[in-house]
Amino acid sequence: MDTEFPLVDHHCHGVIRREADRHAFESLLTEAPAPSALGGSLFDSRIGLAVRRWCAPVLDLAAHAPADEYLARRAELGHPEVNRRFLGAAGLSALLVDTGFEPEPLLGPAELGELAGAPAYEIVRLEQVAEQVLAGGVAAGDFAEALRTRLAARTANAVGVKSIAAYRVGLDLAPERPAPAEVTAAAGRFLREGGGRLADEVLHRFLIWCGADLGLPIQFHVGLGDPDVRLRDCDPLLLMPLLRALQPTGVPVLLLHNYPFHREAGYLTQVFGTVFADIGLAAHNLGDRAGTLLVELTELAPFGKVLYSSDAFGLPELYFLAATLFRRALDEVLTGGVGAGSWTRADAGRFRGMVAGENARRVYFPG
Amino acid sequence: MDTEFPLVDHHCHGVIRREADRHAFESLLTEAPAPSALGGSLFDSRIGLAVRRWCAPVLDLAAHAPADEYLARRAELGHPEVNRRFLGAAGLSALLVDTGFEPEPLLGPAELGELAGAPAYEIVRLEQVAEQVLAGGVAAGDFAEALRTRLAARTANAVGVKSIAAYRVGLDLAPERPAPAEVTAAAGRFLREGGGRLADEVLHRFLIWCGADLGLPIQFHVGLGDPDVRLRDCDPLLLMPLLRALQPTGVPVLLLHNYPFHREAGYLTQVFGTVFADIGLAAHNLGDRAGTLLVELTELAPFGKVLYSSDAFGLPELYFLAATLFRRALDEVLTGGVGAGSWTRADAGRFRGMVAGENARRVYFPG
Amino acid sequence: MDTEFPLVDHHCHGVIRREADRHAFESLLTEAPAPSALGGSLFDSRIGLAVRRWCAPVLDLAAHAPADEYLARRAELGHPEVNRRFLGAAGLSALLVDTGFEPEPLLGPAELGELAGAPAYEIVRLEQVAEQVLAGGVAAGDFAEALRTRLAARTANAVGVKSIAAYRVGLDLAPERPAPAEVTAAAGRFLREGGGRLADEVLHRFLIWCGADLGLPIQFHVGLGDPDVRLRDCDPLLLMPLLRALQPTGVPVLLLHNYPFHREAGYLTQVFGTVFADIGLAAHNLGDRAGTLLVELTELAPFGKVLYSSDAFGLPELYFLAATLFRRALDEVLTGGVGAGSWTRADAGRFRGMVAGENARRVYFPG
Repeated sequence: MDTEFPLVDHHCHGVIRREADRHAFESLLTEAPAPSALGGSLFDSRIGLAVRRWCAPVLDLAAHAPADEYLARRAELGHPEVNRRFLGAAGLSALLVDTGFEPEPLLGPAELGELAGAPAYEIVRLEQVAEQVLAGGVAAGDFAEALRTRLAARTANAVGVKSIAAYRVGLDLAPERPAPAEVTAAAGRFLREGGGRLADEVLHRFLIWCGADLGLPIQFHVGLGDPDVRLRDCDPLLLMPLLRALQPTGVPVLLLHNYPFHREAGYLTQVFGTVFADIGLAAHNLGDRAGTLLVELTELAPFGKVLYSSDAFGLPELYFLAATLFRRALDEVLTGGVGAGSWTRADAGRFRGMVAGENARRVYFPG
Repeated sequence: MDTEFPLVDHHCHGVIRREADRHAFESLLTEAPAPSALGGSLFDSRIGLAVRRWCAPVLDLAAHAPADEYLARRAELGHPEVNRRFLGAAGLSALLVDTGFEPEPLLGPAELGELAGAPAYEIVRLEQVAEQVLAGGVAAGDFAEALRTRLAARTANAVGVKSIAAYRVGLDLAPERPAPAEVTAAAGRFLREGGGRLADEVLHRFLIWCGADLGLPIQFHVGLGDPDVRLRDCDPLLLMPLLRALQPTGVPVLLLHNYPFHREAGYLTQVFGTVFADIGLAAHNLGDRAGTLLVELTELAPFGKVLYSSDAFGLPELYFLAATLFRRALDEVLTGGVGAGSWTRADAGRFRGMVAGENARRVYFPG
Repeated sequence: MDTEFPLVDHHCHGVIRREADRHAFESLLTEAPAPSALGGSLFDSRIGLAVRRWCAPVLDLAAHAPADEYLARRAELGHPEVNRRFLGAAGLSALLVDTGFEPEPLLGPAELGELAGAPAYEIVRLEQVAEQVLAGGVAAGDFAEALRTRLAARTANAVGVKSIAAYRVGLDLAPERPAPAEVTAAAGRFLREGGGRLADEVLHRFLIWCGADLGLPIQFHVGLGDPDVRLRDCDPLLLMPLLRALQPTGVPVLLLHNYPFHREAGYLTQVFGTVFADIGLAAHNLGDRAGTLLVELTELAPFGKVLYSSDAFGLPELYFLAATLFRRALDEVLTGGVGAGSWTRADAGRFRGMVAGENARRVYFPG
């Protein structure tokens, strides 16, 4: 099967505008904040091994080049060239960039799209907009209206919104749209406590409903993330009451990452007509095990409900690595099924088209 | 290895008495209430692909016939003939039919047994009996006694009972037999609130203990189901306190479905002498992945603790498909173990006999 | 690849000093307290099959010898010879023995080490020390100081401590070091209630911080165990707040067993620099599936974070079986990766050395 087909990357981030030495590179490689002297190098895990296997040749090195050699060559080429090579080699037909997390200056959607040779669109992070509105001196009683106005403006050219409730309060969200008085009270609490990072179940929920009111697809962080997350509260099954409540709006819901709850996510995509899932972030972290992840997701997930994303952040390698591993994973799943007699070659071709881009286009670019 | 051996289907349901167009067929195919325009066809998932692969030839079509062709042929033959073919081809030696869910007129145990050419027995759904007693005008204080009397009568010819506590309140059930005053109070609450669907932790628990008092095997819905379920509350590990309390009664407990908690179910079958498990419903939903499911269940589950069920409901295809996929899964597990040198061919044959029927007979037809 | 390399067994227990008939043997074989007439023999599970496959030849029988033949030969040889053979054949380079669970007289570290031909070290069970201090007539207000004194003495020659909070109160432990008044109050409660088995969240947490204050590696029981455990409360993700709080101490944390939460454990080893994991107990219970377990753990776990343990208890077979299955599992993972082109043969050799012993030495014998 052809493994060169383009992918819509429906959830990704900017990449850094600087060089990265070994410590910096390892710190951006996984969800660990940094490598640990006690634990050894993060290159000695599947993701690091996948970098050496797949990324080294893009920098003109032999596959499996040692980490130090890899990093030396990377420094020699310089980050603009490294960015150019990896974004260009990712083989993307569109990028949907979450612009809401920028701890340092990053390449923005336009620059990413140019390097990738594909159109780039924006996903707006709900919590970022809310934090900006609240930091702008709004009165608690005016917050709801101000947020709606700001969100409408910010998403005028965006194709979706994203909730990071998982990171802040977990996914055990009540299903109901919060009442205006609740929103005002929650905004008041936040402002009295001095602002900062939004982490209030009522406000996260309010934001999600605001996104739904705009008719925009809603992405949810689900499953693994950095150690700030309480991973047990990121099980997508916790979302069931809210998914049930959102279902009648017809708004698509996208469950991102999902590991190690990807089977649970697959279940949700089967039983809720508007729910979709991907294996972004997890796939490149798992390296050569990405295929198993996709097999397990699709135990229940219909092929019409699976999307591709990289969740690449910081390192341009992750754009290329995620795409490479996903193509291989998809080929492993689809060709494997043909080989086992489970479906036909024509079916496999059709599913590849759906997962590589048609599903994303149906969700984000309808009509 | 011979893949024609008969199976005891220890948990199944009736099938519909009508034709099914594409929407109706897809609506009965999985746990989704219906296919979704946004998400595409449920045929584009492993279960739909397995229907095309395995069921099409039973209707004289080529394997992998397209869905529309399949449904046209199905309509052409008519539902009595379709039922006859699939039940007859399932290769069952006995059927244990849960008669407690009948949203529309279904074939009953006697008819199913006749079509399958095998004896059919009844499993009585505890909640159905309770709802009937409560709907019949009983006073709260008389409920316990009336329920016991009715349950004894209803199970006189039955071989087991089933609890759907998972669907209504989840599996986090207290271990103790509820006190008479608690039962009366709970029945009173239910009656005051106007009856309807039973969903009260005390009453579900009372019913389970009533089943145990009758010495009948108790089936529990565990794991995946329709989107009404709160799947996170269907983890069988939640049952541990109750399983510990039931253990001294010697009553067999059967954990049904279990996905995605099948490894957890396997653990419970190892450590509790009276606990058994199956992969019904999940196996046909997973299609060609049923073997992996069975492998994972039997990581800890002794082969003396694993049963077969289809959990077929509505579509006669599911009787045949579940049996076909399970035979293949069992063969994959057992022949795989022989090939890997993990056990002998004689062991494999012995385990096949246990899982295909001996375990079920020991549980439901002792002595 | 050479499968004869020695292993550091970083968590194991004593073995019995008596003969074992079939019932006694099966009762020690798995986490089930005993085999069940209803459920059949525990030999008919992967662990029992692995005993017949791998242990029988050590007793001069053919591989796959029937269970009764195996047990007859075992009785014929006598337990001293059986102990000698299995410990000797395990191929260990060091043993770290948890001495805190001794329901009957067992071989101690020195005897185990002599039979294994390797140095044996002690792991001190925190709760055992606390129960001894509390049983010794201490006043509640003096408990904290007495415990610290006793623990320092007991660990003078030990290489680590172990918490069994999972068994007693679950792993949902608060992160903070408990205040002195809280510890006094908890000790008072325990003493007023007549002592016995410690099961108090404050006291387990206090003990863990006492271990950390001594700078000793802390082992945690995680995941599967006997049916006394509430397995759902043994998910290592529950430990995240405490792991976050312990991280700055630099003390290594070792997550033991982990099944069926081994993917979750793998995540924790990636994101916390001081957290390590093994698949002890689970690996031999899963028999020929141990390789899959290790593959799934290492989806996220860096190879610098994975250790070997047997968690052998009671039966000397478990020392040998765990080591044999782990060597095969490690070879399956590492050679598999080479075969798939995921890493080089040199990488595989390096990872083997790390997992087989270097990681354990870095944790337990630094400097």
